[in-house]
Order: sequence, then C-alpha cells, then structure tokens
Amino acid sequence: MPTHSFDQAIALEPQPDGTCTGHTNPGYANMVGPYGGITTAQALQAVLQSPTRLGEPVSLTVNFCAAVADGPFVVQAWAARTNRSTQHWMIEMRQGDEVVMTGTAVTAARRDTWGVDEEPMPLCPPPHESPLPTHRLPMEFLNRYELRSVSGGLPAAWDGSGHSSLTQLWVRDEPPRPLDFASLSAMADIFFPRVFIRRATHVPVGTVSMTVYFHASSAQLAETGTGYLLGQARAQAFRNGFFDQTSQLWNEAGVLLVTTHQIVYYKG
Amino acid sequence: MPTHSFDQAIALEPQPDGTCTGHTNPGYANMVGPYGGITTAQALQAVLQSPTRLGEPVSLTVNFCAAVADGPFVVQAWAARTNRSTQHWMIEMRQGDEVVMTGTAVTAARRDTWGVDEEPMPLCPPPHESPLPTHRLPMEFLNRYELRSVSGGLPAAWDGSGHSSLTQLWVRDEPPRPLDFASLSAMADIFFPRVFIRRATHVPVGTVSMTVYFHASSAQLAETGTGYLLGQARAQAFRNGFFDQTSQLWNEAGVLLVTTHQIVYYKG
Repeated sequence: MPTHSFDQAIALEPQPDGTCTGHTNPGYANMVGPYGGITTAQALQAVLQSPTRLGEPVSLTVNFCAAVADGPFVVQAWAARTNRSTQHWMIEMRQGDEVVMTGTAVTAARRDTWGVDEEPMPLCPPPHESPLPTHRLPMEFLNRYELRSVSGGLPAAWDGSGHSSLTQLWVRDEPPRPLDFASLSAMADIFFPRVFIRRATHVPVGTVSMTVYFHASSAQLAETGTGYLLGQARAQAFRNGFFDQTSQLWNEAGVLLVTTHQIVYYKG
Repeated sequence: MPTHSFDQAIALEPQPDGTCTGHTNPGYANMVGPYGGITTAQALQAVLQSPTRLGEPVSLTVNFCAAVADGPFVVQAWAARTNRSTQHWMIEMRQGDEVVMTGTAVTAARRDTWGVDEEPMPLCPPPHESPLPTHRLPMEFLNRYELRSVSGGLPAAWDGSGHSSLTQLWVRDEPPRPLDFASLSAMADIFFPRVFIRRATHVPVGTVSMTVYFHASSAQLAETGTGYLLGQARAQAFRNGFFDQTSQLWNEAGVLLVTTHQIVYYKG
C-alpha cells in the first residue's frame, strides 16, 4: 500500500479483461462525491499504467457525465490509434452499468525542438509570503493540498460584489510529493468555480468537461520536484448555465507546465 | 443536393447500423488532405443529426489521429450517457479499418441564467476596413472563407523575425451562409498555425487535438446570421514538438460565441 494519500487514491488494479478497478478515496472527497481532479488523475493513470503506452501525455480531455458515487469504479483506457510517435486513447469510467466519465488522451514521444513560453508567469509574491487559508473549509480534499492565496480567493462576503474571475494561487500536495503527470492533472482542477469569484454568489456548479495540455516533460516535472506551482484561472464567458475556465500552472522557476480549460455547469 | 459548398461538405448519410457515411470535399482541401475545421464540422454533424440528440452543443473535443485521406469515411456518434438536461457523446471517424479521428461532445438543454462576457472583444477596425489577402494561397479551403486581416497575418518574409503569436482577423463563409453550430466549429480552426506567426518560419505542423466551447445558443447564431466573426488566436507555449493555441470568436455585436483551444504538433 503506497504511503502518500495521492498514490493511494489513484491506485488501480489491472484486470484480465483490460479494465482496471479502483475505489474513490475519502481523503479526496468534495462536497458531494470525489474532487474532480482526483477522478481526472484516475482516468489518466489508466493510460499511464497501460503496458502498451507510447510516450508521455500531451493532451487529456475528461467529461464528467454524472456524479461519481463513493465506492468502487471500473476504468478502461484503450488505444484507438497508435502511430510512430503519437498514440490516441479513449477512456471510460463506469460504476455498475452507468458511465460516469468519458475521455480521450494523446501520448507522444517528444523530441527536442525550438521552443518558447509565450505566456509569462505573472509577478506574484513568493509562496512563503502568500497566506494560507484562515479558516478550514468543509471539503476534505482541500486538506490534501497546500494552497496559498495570491489574488482572487473566495469572497469574504457572499454579497454579489465580485467584478473579476481572476484567481492566482500557489499549490502543492500536502504532504509534499514529487510532481508527476497524474498529480499535475489533478492540480489542473484545483481552482474554485469561477462563478463564485466573479459574482461573490454561491450557486450549484459542476464541471462538465476539462482539457489539459501538458507542456512539460517528465524531466521538467522531476526538476519541479516538491516545489510549488503557481496557478492562474479566469473565465471568458458565463452564459445560459455554463461558464468556461482558462488556466495555467507554472513551476517556481517560471516554466509553464500546463495550460488547461474547462466548461462548468452553473445554476441561477 | 444542398447548394452551399459547406452543406455539401458536411452532408452525412445515416446507415442502418447507426453510423453515417460521408466523403471528403475537394473544396475544403488543405495542403495534404482536408482542412481540419471541416473534419471537425463533420464530426459535430454526426451528433447534430442524431435523432436522439438532447439540446445544443456545449463542448466538443476532436482528436486528429491520422491524416484523413481524400475519399469516403464513416463517422459514428453515440450517447454514452443521457441525463435530464445534458448528454455525453463519443465520436469516431474511420476510413477502412483505420481510426482517423476520435472525439467527445456534450450537448445540453440550456436555460436562461445570469451571465456576463468577461473577455471583451478587442478594439479592431471593422471588416470593410480590414484588408483581404493580397495574393492567393495554394490551400483550396481558404477560398471557402472571406478572411480579412486585422493583425498577425502570415509573415511577409519567412526570416525568423516573429515575436508574438497573436492573430486577429474577421471571417465568414464565402459565399456568406447563416451561421450554425457546424460552421462555427469549422471556423474555430481557421487560424494559421501559431508557430508560423511566432517564428516567421515554415515548419511541418498538424493539429492533434482541438476543443471547442460553445457559449452561443442557436438564437444567438441566428442573430449573427451571415455577419462576420472576429477571431483572435495566440499560443501560450511552444515546447518539444507541440504548441497550444487559445482562441475566441465574437460576432460583430461583440457577443463571445466560442472559446477554443488546440494542441498542435510541429517540427524543427
């Protein structure tokens, strides 16, 4: 049994039929059901531990079809197409007869090329000068992360006074754990729903679909180690029950590790 | 036979086994094979014309697994999960025994809610003051669009002098055609590869995965009619053979219709 709670949560048991079985982890519980980021990491893990996998993750899309119930699940990742240097995956997670998540992923053998980060890390105070939460929130998964607020935290008063959805924060696993693709995919979902920040109003929400683009190689993840990531998130549009979120995660050295997007259902 | 070239290109023939057959259209040819936007629209069309579809598109992800060959194809969209107001689709396009595209989509019955566009339309000269291309490019699909450049067009000299990947342009179908979800999904891919703009260097490229978030309702598309869309695209990171593109499309009234992202393979 792995010792870190994240490794326990993403542990999958390969089955003879090519599926994997897993179990939701109470340490990563959200208000109802598990934190979406941990479900995302479980889906990616099914790809990562496939014996036929080629290369490292480049792209991951997960669609949250239904609330995941606390309990066991079956996840299956299969390669729909394998090319010379890229591989295309389809992913499905089930509980009983119900599909609770669908997804696709691309893995690739990456080569050294010309490159540049065009989106610079914003100037922010360093992690140790950025405050920890002043009070504990009821979602258990928040205790699995060290979150230090830079800007755009949860409103002090839910009075409809918000005017921007921008959030910047530092994040790492709690206790610290060396960064890998699975934990990075989970952290891509770490931001509170943008509608809470923009409206300073609490309404029911749920992520419907999330896409993660991995710009980092495993070597860059290893260099990041147990350091903090700077996360930034904002919405571009809130309309008729759905808003988007566009986000970035940089390491402390300013390397852009991930760009990620999601579309989120909201009520009200 | 429909009269507009776009309708001809996305025409699909439902088959008794639940699949649809279609054919690539020479009017939408790219340098090699079809324009990715038209393949995207064909995939979405398979969802749109399904008799069991619920609501309108909210999210679409397509993965380009292999070059689509000129000729016939089979596309299948099936609902993995149908909820009260949302539906989750999986999509697969085949040519012979080969999977050439995979995808997922979410459709939903949308309701009136509070909303706001947080990403404003940039200030740009109007379409009639924005220049048409001065010379014809060899890709046939470009003749199916009226493209008017605002900023960040193709470099005048391929001399490695680029410094930003930002492009802004006006676009509509040529000849004009009332906007719908299928044509909007095609226009989400209208931008030249960001690496061309950023580096002023021509290298082999290919979109690997694209996600489109639809913020517009069919009523807003009808209001847009045959008007122009303002498109904006930029990259956030170019690294080890893949760059991302983050884009928006607004109508002339300034309504944000689509936010879209893609990850693109590049060489060199």
